[in-house]
Amino acid sequence: MFSKKKVLLLGATGETGSSILNGLQESGDFDVEVLVRPASANKPSVQRLREQGIRIWSLELDDYNELVSALTGVDILISAIGPHDLLQQKKLLQAAKLAGVKRIVPCAFMTVGPPQGAMLLRDEKEEIYNAIKFLGVPYTVVDVGYWYQISYPTLPSGKVDYAQIVPVTAIHGDGAAPNILTDLRDVGRFVARIVLDDRTLNRYVYTSGDVLSENEIFRIAEEMSGEKLEPSRITNEDIETSVEQARAALAHDPHDPMKRIGIYLTQYEHSKYVRQDNSPEYAGYLGYLSAKKLYPDFKPKTFRDFFVEVLAGKGKKVYA
Amino acid sequence: MFSKKKVLLLGATGETGSSILNGLQESGDFDVEVLVRPASANKPSVQRLREQGIRIWSLELDDYNELVSALTGVDILISAIGPHDLLQQKKLLQAAKLAGVKRIVPCAFMTVGPPQGAMLLRDEKEEIYNAIKFLGVPYTVVDVGYWYQISYPTLPSGKVDYAQIVPVTAIHGDGAAPNILTDLRDVGRFVARIVLDDRTLNRYVYTSGDVLSENEIFRIAEEMSGEKLEPSRITNEDIETSVEQARAALAHDPHDPMKRIGIYLTQYEHSKYVRQDNSPEYAGYLGYLSAKKLYPDFKPKTFRDFFVEVLAGKGKKVYA
Repeated sequence: MFSKKKVLLLGATGETGSSILNGLQESGDFDVEVLVRPASANKPSVQRLREQGIRIWSLELDDYNELVSALTGVDILISAIGPHDLLQQKKLLQAAKLAGVKRIVPCAFMTVGPPQGAMLLRDEKEEIYNAIKFLGVPYTVVDVGYWYQISYPTLPSGKVDYAQIVPVTAIHGDGAAPNILTDLRDVGRFVARIVLDDRTLNRYVYTSGDVLSENEIFRIAEEMSGEKLEPSRITNEDIETSVEQARAALAHDPHDPMKRIGIYLTQYEHSKYVRQDNSPEYAGYLGYLSAKKLYPDFKPKTFRDFFVEVLAGKGKKVYA
Repeated sequence: MFSKKKVLLLGATGETGSSILNGLQESGDFDVEVLVRPASANKPSVQRLREQGIRIWSLELDDYNELVSALTGVDILISAIGPHDLLQQKKLLQAAKLAGVKRIVPCAFMTVGPPQGAMLLRDEKEEIYNAIKFLGVPYTVVDVGYWYQISYPTLPSGKVDYAQIVPVTAIHGDGAAPNILTDLRDVGRFVARIVLDDRTLNRYVYTSGDVLSENEIFRIAEEMSGEKLEPSRITNEDIETSVEQARAALAHDPHDPMKRIGIYLTQYEHSKYVRQDNSPEYAGYLGYLSAKKLYPDFKPKTFRDFFVEVLAGKGKKVYA
């Protein structure tokens, strides 16, 4: 008899978490419950989930006994916790082990990169992956590359400004680094497949809709919009300088979240364009499976699919 | 046309390194050169390698340019550096990348365990594996479990004392933890196969001759020797206390290599018997390939093969 898998989702109101919640609901294969911290329990976004009839667990992440209660009977724990709170997942892992959760999907959902030394964000995630392996609990790490939603150029006409959080007007280095890209809305659709798949157990998986360089993205955007783009150029040295400056700023003020965001963003650029980590080749070297290859029946949105929508005024600004 | 692969071996005069050198020489598939540090260059053990006609490179491990020279034209770099000097491999990795080495086998050759947090020795090895992945150079990690040579019980008759470095008279916990074991002499034979195998590229592999619990080992030893064994019992709590004591001793005197050895030994016991890490099941979870399965044509020595030799007076004390 088919029975739905029970999922507990942490971070359900963030960009990644919302996509995951939608993907799980769309598939129909899951009973989803949501874990929020008490400070968020009355936010309108959480209230909307409650109104959908989703069970909400409001718990502190250091309340071990309550976490065990919430996790009892859960098949799959998925964490899309925010970047500043990654290390708060540790008690949750221990509780999941005790509760007998069958698969933990820790907060990954970023670009492909080395386990240590290239990105602060990735280094902290690695600490969690190591804690998982120390406990010996079943897991899957899912990375998604960079989102289409923050990877397309600003047009001179101003036509796509409505959907951009910051203007994108430059190309990094020679613009030729290939980048793994996924439509944010497909993240959850991929996750819904990945977490039911024995082949992905205790493995790393990356999703992708397209793999494109900046040169290719700008060319497609010109072709599809009919507008001429004249990107400025950011050299590898410029990127290295930005990383150093962000590092110095954080060292000066280590508890300021904005300074951490400065590090994340500059290190993303460094990893994607200078080191060129976010590529299928490096992912393969690191042992990742390709979700696109695992699920040939699923057609993720291509960058062109996405950009048609943006040009038609149907884009949506992330982090809005 | 078949041509021999060129190997540069570091640590060739240690127990693991000697086994690897023998294994590579036995196979006939390799031209082996050896890297030693100048402080060791005139040791009798190095002199013996020289007399065999092996090319010896005498270099400091922080002399980047010389390392690049030694590594130019090398197909495979194998490091069996001692446990206290693991972090000294870092410049070597960079030099190997520049020289275009096709596979790096960093110093692993221990039991299977989690990447972080269970054993100081493993934690430092992980730092090197992370440095390899940061550089993106091709690698293979080879672990071997524990050696038969230090895993068999002392007999009441005193018959095997000649080949033991310390008496083995106790069983840990309930004695039922399965342990991956390899004959030290087979380490090199496995390595000679592993480093020529595309399937092991950028993977972790464990070798094994047998997988046995202490209860099984003691039973086999009784049966083969005809002697009655009355092992004492070491509880998990005893092991945990020993680890704590060793940790405190090292904290008190962090630069004393003997204090580090105290940590290594107690953490080996903790990992093998309390955590029960050194098992095929946990190795599989961590993504290791089994060398025994990869090479069904190769028959590694079984524990019985080994113990027959020891009983016949043909054993050899390690670290002698």
